[in-house]
Amino acid sequence: MTTDKHTETTPAPVSVLGLGHMGRALAGALLRAGHPTTVFNRTAAKADDLVAEGAARAGTPAEAVAAAPLVIACVTDYDALHALLDPVNPAALRGRTLVNLTTGTSEQARATAAWAAERGATYLDGAIMAAPPGIGTAAATIVVSGPRAEFDRHAPALRGLAGDTPYLGADEGLTALYEMAVVGLMWSILNGWLQGAALLGTAGVSAADYTAVAAKGIPTVADWLPGYAKQIDTGTFPVDDATLDVHRAAMAHLVQESESLGVNTEFPALIKAIADRAAAAGHGGEGYAAMIEEFRRPAAQPR
Amino acid sequence: MTTDKHTETTPAPVSVLGLGHMGRALAGALLRAGHPTTVFNRTAAKADDLVAEGAARAGTPAEAVAAAPLVIACVTDYDALHALLDPVNPAALRGRTLVNLTTGTSEQARATAAWAAERGATYLDGAIMAAPPGIGTAAATIVVSGPRAEFDRHAPALRGLAGDTPYLGADEGLTALYEMAVVGLMWSILNGWLQGAALLGTAGVSAADYTAVAAKGIPTVADWLPGYAKQIDTGTFPVDDATLDVHRAAMAHLVQESESLGVNTEFPALIKAIADRAAAAGHGGEGYAAMIEEFRRPAAQPR
Repeated sequence: MTTDKHTETTPAPVSVLGLGHMGRALAGALLRAGHPTTVFNRTAAKADDLVAEGAARAGTPAEAVAAAPLVIACVTDYDALHALLDPVNPAALRGRTLVNLTTGTSEQARATAAWAAERGATYLDGAIMAAPPGIGTAAATIVVSGPRAEFDRHAPALRGLAGDTPYLGADEGLTALYEMAVVGLMWSILNGWLQGAALLGTAGVSAADYTAVAAKGIPTVADWLPGYAKQIDTGTFPVDDATLDVHRAAMAHLVQESESLGVNTEFPALIKAIADRAAAAGHGGEGYAAMIEEFRRPAAQPR
Repeated sequence: MTTDKHTETTPAPVSVLGLGHMGRALAGALLRAGHPTTVFNRTAAKADDLVAEGAARAGTPAEAVAAAPLVIACVTDYDALHALLDPVNPAALRGRTLVNLTTGTSEQARATAAWAAERGATYLDGAIMAAPPGIGTAAATIVVSGPRAEFDRHAPALRGLAGDTPYLGADEGLTALYEMAVVGLMWSILNGWLQGAALLGTAGVSAADYTAVAAKGIPTVADWLPGYAKQIDTGTFPVDDATLDVHRAAMAHLVQESESLGVNTEFPALIKAIADRAAAAGHGGEGYAAMIEEFRRPAAQPR
């Protein structure tokens, strides 16, 4: 009745440039998914385990590029990426797809997409939101931006690396922006939590006891975000819970408490300073999301 | 076989001082739970709805204190609390229990506990971690500190206000510290999220689209906290995922991205500055939780 099972494609050849912790995890997952996998690393010995598992070793980046239509790069930074790929004969890149998982800025991603286009190569920018042991699992996320058709073409290989591969859009710079936003949010959570651990520590409360209570609030706050996002998208900031002025009064307590207990006051003071500026701009009676206007401009820029 | 059902106590009389949004929610929940409830507010009209539901109206704070062994206060700040209670004849407070849900600092809570003790009253400090509509539901949390026996005695009334009433310890200042830690964490999450919304907004991405991706990372980070808490409690900071130096490289990208896109750089710059100080203190090769040492001291304090 059906021949679907006969139409499954054989995993396509893939080359991996860069064999740090993450690069090795990527190549390992590709091998396990059945892709003929070629690997290159500046320090060749880092490929030994992968070669033992069946990977082909490329002696140069050019050899890796020649070995597969899909080249995945995951190196320290864009300087390292260009140090590997700039010396490759531009003609060798024609028709190749470069999936770049190297962390950088949106500008670097867009510039490298243009660099690839000049060589007749296509470019997808990706960001891994997982630790190396998560690679190849359903729980891993790799966000991707660039030409939609290229994304669709290489989606099977990408899904072997991460079960969740959201496509962000055609602008190759989007991936870096999302990655920065997500890690920035991560540091914000960690630092907010550390501030509290320091505060509670002054009263002899263990970080474990503090965390058992404090962590309960995190999903609650996460649940508010879609509603606040809608406010930002519509530019209206009705008061769902407390006005910004009510928040500011409590922020003053946090600053005061941190000062009097001798812990760091920099984050509390900055939280309050930005809220104070939002209030000075007329948002004190609105909801918290009205703060977006302060985040959209440099602190020193006049309104 | 059992007479347990016959030993259920009749809900005890309670007085509520302060009928803002939260105070009215508290009094309403007490009434619904069957407590004879007396209410006082400086603007008497705020009690009208509650009186219609069966509450007794006190004409003065002293009348409210006289009406019930348990007095719950929820006013704007400690100045407002003392403006209500300081004029009450000290003898009238003898044997009363004051549960203070007013937000303030740990020092204010401890000072008010001492003030109550001078009058022969007992004192519990509480912090509401819920919005007014949540009061009286299983999902609401009210954390409480003060004498354990008093907490146990009044736990039935408190559980009518919030299904979750963690007891934090005998030190009356703990509640304020937990409250500040939890709201500080809340603002940190919101601000980290706003920074990302501003970044993505420069590329025309809606806050809703950004949030759909970014919010996925929040539970992941929350899951790390108990492990990091253990590191803080043992004072060792092994590298679970990335070293602080790896984080610092990515923080530099966030600062650079924010700068070049013209959005606010204050939070990214502070995140990086504190991490840089931790690295300068020798923690660059350790895990993120090693940052706790920077949060434990004022920025300007020499090591």
